[in-house]
Amino acid sequence: MKNWKNSIYSDGSKYFVSNPQPTYGETVTIKLRLYEDAPVVSVFMRSLPNGAENVVKMDLCDNKNGFNYYQAKMLISESRMQYQFYIACADKIYYYTQRGLTDYIQDNSCDFVLLADYRQPSWVKSQVFYQIFPARFKKSDKNEIGIHEGDLLGIKEKIPYLKYLGVTAIYLNPIFMAPSDHKYDCSDYFHVDDNFGGDQALAELSDALHQAGMKLMLDISINHTGSTNRWTVTHPDYYFRDEQTGKFYGWAGYDSLPTLDYRNHELRRVIYENNDSVIKKWLKPPYSIDGWRFDVADVFARKDEVQLAHDIWPKLRASIRSENDDAYILAEDWGDCAQYQQGTEWDSSMNYFGCARPLREFAGEVDLFIARNEELKSIHPYITGENVAGRIREHLSRIPFAMWQNQFNLIDSHDISRLHNNPEVNPGDYKGTVITQYMLIGTPSLYYGDELDIQGHLLNDSGCRYPMPWDREDNKPDIFYFYKTLNKLKTSTPALIEGGMEIIYAQGPVIALARFSDEEAYVSVFSKSDKSETIELEIGLCGFLNIPEDKDIFGNVLSYTRVDEATISMTLNPHTAYLFKVN
Amino acid sequence: MKNWKNSIYSDGSKYFVSNPQPTYGETVTIKLRLYEDAPVVSVFMRSLPNGAENVVKMDLCDNKNGFNYYQAKMLISESRMQYQFYIACADKIYYYTQRGLTDYIQDNSCDFVLLADYRQPSWVKSQVFYQIFPARFKKSDKNEIGIHEGDLLGIKEKIPYLKYLGVTAIYLNPIFMAPSDHKYDCSDYFHVDDNFGGDQALAELSDALHQAGMKLMLDISINHTGSTNRWTVTHPDYYFRDEQTGKFYGWAGYDSLPTLDYRNHELRRVIYENNDSVIKKWLKPPYSIDGWRFDVADVFARKDEVQLAHDIWPKLRASIRSENDDAYILAEDWGDCAQYQQGTEWDSSMNYFGCARPLREFAGEVDLFIARNEELKSIHPYITGENVAGRIREHLSRIPFAMWQNQFNLIDSHDISRLHNNPEVNPGDYKGTVITQYMLIGTPSLYYGDELDIQGHLLNDSGCRYPMPWDREDNKPDIFYFYKTLNKLKTSTPALIEGGMEIIYAQGPVIALARFSDEEAYVSVFSKSDKSETIELEIGLCGFLNIPEDKDIFGNVLSYTRVDEATISMTLNPHTAYLFKVN
Repeated sequence: MKNWKNSIYSDGSKYFVSNPQPTYGETVTIKLRLYEDAPVVSVFMRSLPNGAENVVKMDLCDNKNGFNYYQAKMLISESRMQYQFYIACADKIYYYTQRGLTDYIQDNSCDFVLLADYRQPSWVKSQVFYQIFPARFKKSDKNEIGIHEGDLLGIKEKIPYLKYLGVTAIYLNPIFMAPSDHKYDCSDYFHVDDNFGGDQALAELSDALHQAGMKLMLDISINHTGSTNRWTVTHPDYYFRDEQTGKFYGWAGYDSLPTLDYRNHELRRVIYENNDSVIKKWLKPPYSIDGWRFDVADVFARKDEVQLAHDIWPKLRASIRSENDDAYILAEDWGDCAQYQQGTEWDSSMNYFGCARPLREFAGEVDLFIARNEELKSIHPYITGENVAGRIREHLSRIPFAMWQNQFNLIDSHDISRLHNNPEVNPGDYKGTVITQYMLIGTPSLYYGDELDIQGHLLNDSGCRYPMPWDREDNKPDIFYFYKTLNKLKTSTPALIEGGMEIIYAQGPVIALARFSDEEAYVSVFSKSDKSETIELEIGLCGFLNIPEDKDIFGNVLSYTRVDEATISMTLNPHTAYLFKVN
Repeated sequence: MKNWKNSIYSDGSKYFVSNPQPTYGETVTIKLRLYEDAPVVSVFMRSLPNGAENVVKMDLCDNKNGFNYYQAKMLISESRMQYQFYIACADKIYYYTQRGLTDYIQDNSCDFVLLADYRQPSWVKSQVFYQIFPARFKKSDKNEIGIHEGDLLGIKEKIPYLKYLGVTAIYLNPIFMAPSDHKYDCSDYFHVDDNFGGDQALAELSDALHQAGMKLMLDISINHTGSTNRWTVTHPDYYFRDEQTGKFYGWAGYDSLPTLDYRNHELRRVIYENNDSVIKKWLKPPYSIDGWRFDVADVFARKDEVQLAHDIWPKLRASIRSENDDAYILAEDWGDCAQYQQGTEWDSSMNYFGCARPLREFAGEVDLFIARNEELKSIHPYITGENVAGRIREHLSRIPFAMWQNQFNLIDSHDISRLHNNPEVNPGDYKGTVITQYMLIGTPSLYYGDELDIQGHLLNDSGCRYPMPWDREDNKPDIFYFYKTLNKLKTSTPALIEGGMEIIYAQGPVIALARFSDEEAYVSVFSKSDKSETIELEIGLCGFLNIPEDKDIFGNVLSYTRVDEATISMTLNPHTAYLFKVN
């Protein structure tokens, strides 16, 4: 049954804000919609210019698909404009923020936010990233000296494969000089490892990718170097060291990974300030990378009394953007890191917190952080749709919408076992998890080989870094076409690129998401139940009412009856996910 | 019926943290309690030193009153240490933060927080403040020149009255030179208005109060001066002015209140930096005030592109504390201002947001902010216990416990009509509101005259600034003794001074709070219902089970039966509040 309280919706997309990236001094129009038959008397928008409440009545401006649309104007008088909505009924007022609807006054922590001084990287939201662990992907045909099972020219050779798969941006794990295969123990930030083909190979790869219309993001740990880095000898002051012994302080206790001390201003210059700094060098031609992924950003520039994170990140950001004002700034943090995603620091974290962790837990695994504790690991709670929706909503509710669209949504990576390698995860649930990942607002990341059903184990990091099984390229598994279909949808559909998102159902074993533009919507419904489930799904919440096709985009038959104009009763097969259009 | 999930509790008080105000490098012990018969396997504490998760198992350390107590140690390695708890059952994990309990992983926004670099004003939590609007309180016997109906020596004369009433700290509205009676239009910050007796009268009043064991807080607007201030002539650069016309920019549009521009460093020096600055002068002998209340702090140092609030407040705080390291820093903000209450800026706001606004709304008024809008004002929603509890919990959940204890909890002030003057508010509900105010963690503020049932009207500010009805002093109304009883309890009871707080019931027309030390608890139960209500009250949640007396502290008979060892079924008379001991 349709419920008007669920229908209240606004977001920071171009469909609800006349200019989602306004400039200072501009006036924007903000919209909100709700069911036309809702018992609502009037709608107000409340902003806080200069800290003072400003309540303005919104005007009814449109009616379509059973919704009334209201609008109000807002002057962008500060770099950060926050607002919420009051929904007035005859004898009750409701309060609506990014957290949702309450019947009591909310605090400001989940306000909608527009950022005047923030420039969103324009390309990110329309991409599918493909993460490559370079040492295991493809060794180029001519490579006879490299000690690893992959190199940069090998990746270049496989661009046609990647284009066919439909991914559009490459995220490479570290490639700079380092003794290990993962290369997070960097010995020289200024040169690509010879085993990967050296600087020249990167220039060639970058050029080829850009020629193919693709993007390239590199990975770096500027939190620590490897112990073989000559700076440990030439510039020991670049590092945190024990005052008594002079011993280097290793990241997470590893002596081989001495941690950099950003109190040292010469270090800041060489890492990100100078024109020939590490960070700027690779943004410039001929390498011209499109973004940086920063390793262990959660602990960066922090050591007890030294807490420089919020001092350094804005400067690092400014330095990157001075070189490429459309560069993507991605940071590794597995936990809640909303504080860094407010417009002056990161564009996104590796979204473990609001994607990989809750979705993998919903699929039946123990949460990736909880699993680090032996005793907690032994508990296998049943995670409900409500649980996972709670986690996703809370993650998004405290960051501006401009950041929602940058979210780097992953399921697998070089740091965690591959979900499909877990024998306890049902293959149908794996697909449901991936569909949900692609439906989440932001940009999905596909970890190399998942599309070829790559093998692996769950014991340690080596289990998720198997060589790419190129022997399957000619006889691709079904999962390849599953990903290809999703990649096409994600990179070509305005609803999934620019549109807002609502979790329209989350109960027990089922979670359903909607993405929508002003022309159409897509809805995903994922049931992890062992049996057939029949649910009442309020598809109207996506802003549209009509289901134009009998099957979903994968050919699954849609089995439903109408309850009312906005609601269907839908029967879901066990361990099945559906993804279909509504318009 | 007792519910073990409700019993999970920890806070930042000395009863749960071995040193609530730890120093850097110290190790503290943190405790959590829950019912001994809860189906809990183990309890963990999760902290985030240097941004990295640290999960430690807590040890069972005590058992009393039906509770198990768990403890773990934490090294204070940073100035801000945040933590939450994982409660592990056989097949489920619960997550506990200041927001409460969830069965899914929470973000970090409501973590418990210990502050190493924050010094809590030691005296605030044991006070009852008494707010005086000086122009209307008492004219001293010798005063023949003052144009107002009150002066500072008049207050001094009434110290015996105040002592008998049981208040312990005085909050004076502005007293510096100014044309108006409210004196927010200051013409000279360096002198007390002659109509109030001049500087000498303040020195005498301060001395007399301190002799009487009382505290004194002054009020100042350093956001704006009055237009008669000579600075408008001698130092026009101290003010925000229109670039074209040179016209001063008035606070809230009032030309008579030109707003100060803190981009000007000379202004900063004269206001708070210099040894003879405004702020420091009155902290020094012979005035020796114990705290500052800052007017319109919500908008202070902010004007569109100029957003200096978080630059100035820490400096202003440091300046005050350099003069008196136990001074109270109170700021006017009626909205959510958790951002300022993190240890480096304010000790508290005027707690409209988490006290006056929700409690007055529960008592039947329209919310004080909502009432500013003519259309919204006409809606009279019925506010439930759940609503008011939601507002109070959300307010407290995002600020450290050390700030909870500073909260300046008010119902009435010079800026709002007096609640008891509203004929729509039931007199019993007024008492229930005040009892709840006194039970809220922090320090209550009693606005002059409320204890003598002072008259007034609801039309504008003059309605809450009537002269003190001294003619009632000899024949005091019942409400005087009601306040006197509360003042005594608040200022002498460890549970209400040092203890934690739980909202133990909040449904429909009823809200119940508990405060508790390690020796006893106090419980308040307030019903605004028109009829008798019988509720199940889980008094055990306060940590104690025994109700030692048949009546509450006001002599109301407690009518209840036992449901189980932790729960009573209690019958509440209409529009009645009870306040009783549990031990």
